[in-house]
Amino acid sequence: MAAAAPPPPPSPAPEPSMNLLEPIRLDLPIFSRVRLATSADVPHIHKMIHQMAVFEKLTHLFSATESSLTATLFNSPPFTSITVFLLEVSPNPFTTASASSAAAFSPIDRVVHLDLPLVDPERETFFSDKANDITVAGFVLFFPNYSTFLAKPGFYVEDLFVRDCYRRKGFGRMLLSAVAKQAVKMGYGRVEWVVLDWNVNAIKFYEEMGAKIQDEWRICRLTGEALQAYGD
Amino acid sequence: MAAAAPPPPPSPAPEPSMNLLEPIRLDLPIFSRVRLATSADVPHIHKMIHQMAVFEKLTHLFSATESSLTATLFNSPPFTSITVFLLEVSPNPFTTASASSAAAFSPIDRVVHLDLPLVDPERETFFSDKANDITVAGFVLFFPNYSTFLAKPGFYVEDLFVRDCYRRKGFGRMLLSAVAKQAVKMGYGRVEWVVLDWNVNAIKFYEEMGAKIQDEWRICRLTGEALQAYGD
Repeated sequence: MAAAAPPPPPSPAPEPSMNLLEPIRLDLPIFSRVRLATSADVPHIHKMIHQMAVFEKLTHLFSATESSLTATLFNSPPFTSITVFLLEVSPNPFTTASASSAAAFSPIDRVVHLDLPLVDPERETFFSDKANDITVAGFVLFFPNYSTFLAKPGFYVEDLFVRDCYRRKGFGRMLLSAVAKQAVKMGYGRVEWVVLDWNVNAIKFYEEMGAKIQDEWRICRLTGEALQAYGD
Repeated sequence: MAAAAPPPPPSPAPEPSMNLLEPIRLDLPIFSRVRLATSADVPHIHKMIHQMAVFEKLTHLFSATESSLTATLFNSPPFTSITVFLLEVSPNPFTTASASSAAAFSPIDRVVHLDLPLVDPERETFFSDKANDITVAGFVLFFPNYSTFLAKPGFYVEDLFVRDCYRRKGFGRMLLSAVAKQAVKMGYGRVEWVVLDWNVNAIKFYEEMGAKIQDEWRICRLTGEALQAYGD
């Protein structure tokens, strides 16, 4: 299909939709920040969870809504239950952290230098602070688990997601490292998560980060009608 | 070695150690109960976690002590964090539930009829109520997890353990069912746990209970020095 595409019209005007989207076009650098998410971030988190379901071809399992997320997230102090770190990017340095974030977790900043300009077609949708040109680019959602052998809590990472146009730039590592750093800070014993066995790139990436793949273990899941049957 | 054992002395007196152990010898029935564990149960829980490590040939990963378990368990209301259900057995019907258990969880009773007498060589060690002849026979330890696709919590079962002499009598199912029933009661979406891929009997048992094995997913674990490196 690519070879059969018609040639562009002569001297085309700029695409109007591109102007509306105001894409990020940066040579260097991108300023990025990992901060604690709050309930105000639920609309962006909801959109990213849906994008993740599309990426994993699991939209048939997706039933979360903004209101069901709002009802179940951010009801406990950070790190005691479900916790979300948000990844934000901006063409400008981050100058202030929100007060609620700074109390429990000091945001982690990183400057990323790119070889090519970066275009974010959904920049408008994911503005978390339009006045300061700050866009949400990803998130990691985790909660405590527990090892009886260690008699220590750990963190289980349920979701690690970076929006499409921000991938392969070290942001996934930045988010997962932030969880690992917090685990060490709290004296926790482990950080765990799951990966699809055919996703060799992800496995390689996780192993490079120091993780061991637990090849012998399989996850068992009791859900839906099979679970409901136990309610009688 | 068994074939070379000397014959018993003529007219032997009853083995003193057997008297001391007072093994359970029941034709039928055994009365069993699942109740919430409390910090008073930590010594028994600790012993069973160690027995589980021996069974799984993972004692090199076992470093829990009674005091480290006491420090990390039972610090939150039941079901909001790490929760333990204890399985107890007795030759007599259970007449009273402890007040602390009954408030958050009504104990589940079951009468088990056996074809052969049951001998518990560690009965003395695992008495939870010697006056009422109640012995600890197993436990299940679980805590909340969360599904972003469902926007619902669930339960993750970290340990399911039944002491050796009580296995294959439906007690494992009784413990896991109690967790599933509690999940349904709380409106949770899933109960999950892991199984070793070579443990075909366990996999068959879990599938009969309605669980699906998530064949494609692998657990990633960041621990030890690899985790500590993120603290710098």
